[in-house]
Amino acid sequence: MSAKLIPDIVVGRLPVYLRALQRMLSEGRRVTSSQELGERLGISAAQIRKDLSQFGEFGKQGTGYTIEYLAERLKTILHVDGVWDVAVIGAGDIGSALARYEGMNNRGFRVAMIFDSDPEKIGTKAGAFTILDSSDMANVIKEQGIKVAMLSVPASAAQKIAEVLVDAGIKAILNYAPINLNVPANVRVQHIDPVSHLQRMTYYIE
Amino acid sequence: MSAKLIPDIVVGRLPVYLRALQRMLSEGRRVTSSQELGERLGISAAQIRKDLSQFGEFGKQGTGYTIEYLAERLKTILHVDGVWDVAVIGAGDIGSALARYEGMNNRGFRVAMIFDSDPEKIGTKAGAFTILDSSDMANVIKEQGIKVAMLSVPASAAQKIAEVLVDAGIKAILNYAPINLNVPANVRVQHIDPVSHLQRMTYYIE
Repeated sequence: MSAKLIPDIVVGRLPVYLRALQRMLSEGRRVTSSQELGERLGISAAQIRKDLSQFGEFGKQGTGYTIEYLAERLKTILHVDGVWDVAVIGAGDIGSALARYEGMNNRGFRVAMIFDSDPEKIGTKAGAFTILDSSDMANVIKEQGIKVAMLSVPASAAQKIAEVLVDAGIKAILNYAPINLNVPANVRVQHIDPVSHLQRMTYYIE
Repeated sequence: MSAKLIPDIVVGRLPVYLRALQRMLSEGRRVTSSQELGERLGISAAQIRKDLSQFGEFGKQGTGYTIEYLAERLKTILHVDGVWDVAVIGAGDIGSALARYEGMNNRGFRVAMIFDSDPEKIGTKAGAFTILDSSDMANVIKEQGIKVAMLSVPASAAQKIAEVLVDAGIKAILNYAPINLNVPANVRVQHIDPVSHLQRMTYYIE
């Protein structure tokens, strides 16, 4: 099946389904339904069935979904059935938090390295990692074949560093800086934008 | 128009549209189209027109949208035409970054206070803020009528603190801890989940 045919907004819901399924597994659950998933997530059951049907048949009418099977299939579809090494760029507050973040376990990623340009930080620790010199960034990323980066640098530096990352072979950038990055079409960027999440909630406050 | 009738996934796209419109404004643009917005955002033009049509008439066939007008209308719909005071709970790496975050300007929010329970941190600075004692949290939030909180505490503490926040009148919680919060139906929770964003990108990496 070609990846090109699935709308990105559908792809974007798969991680949300996977997270809910993994939570159900951790609660000891074995079977669920599009109705139950929908209630947990605030998405209609019909939407969930339609989204999943784009990738194959995962459940039977009337018996619902086997949670473990559906989770494994979603991990394969999202290419997180293995573990991606992630480079964290910028060892400020957010980068340091990412180096210590415990929410990646069993979800397809591990932080492999963290870089900064500040001589005072290089060689010191962020979580379990020794902060590396960002002037070595391109070489290390190339040598180790890293494809995924989290960018936690000041907004003024983000575009220039993104270009270095792309040249070094990075294909996916999670951007914490509040600016738009310009990258080639074969590189994906996602923003962590806390304000969008806040706005989605204030809609409901009278 | 009742807020109840609009699906939450549609509401969730409005902040994304608003962010794109505000960026266009900062580029000096005056008029746009659902086609252009769609290309910027990876959402179909038809979806954008359908989403916006749920809230009224914002453009004319053939002439597109006046960016400033549409942005103002979206701000009103999302209740961010004013400024919400936000309480940050937890002055660790992420809380400290939030206290200094510059991505909220002109988007409907400002950090108003930051709390921590660590006696070593209370009274010290995080950005421009003096860190307050979290044992005063409920009273301060009640007195000042704060409705919005960002929760950047360890996962083990998050549920208990969320309950205190809800009792104090908080209606919207942006949760950075990698756990599910149980809150009453009249309180909204959004997660900052970097792994979901990463998974959405690895889908596209061969």
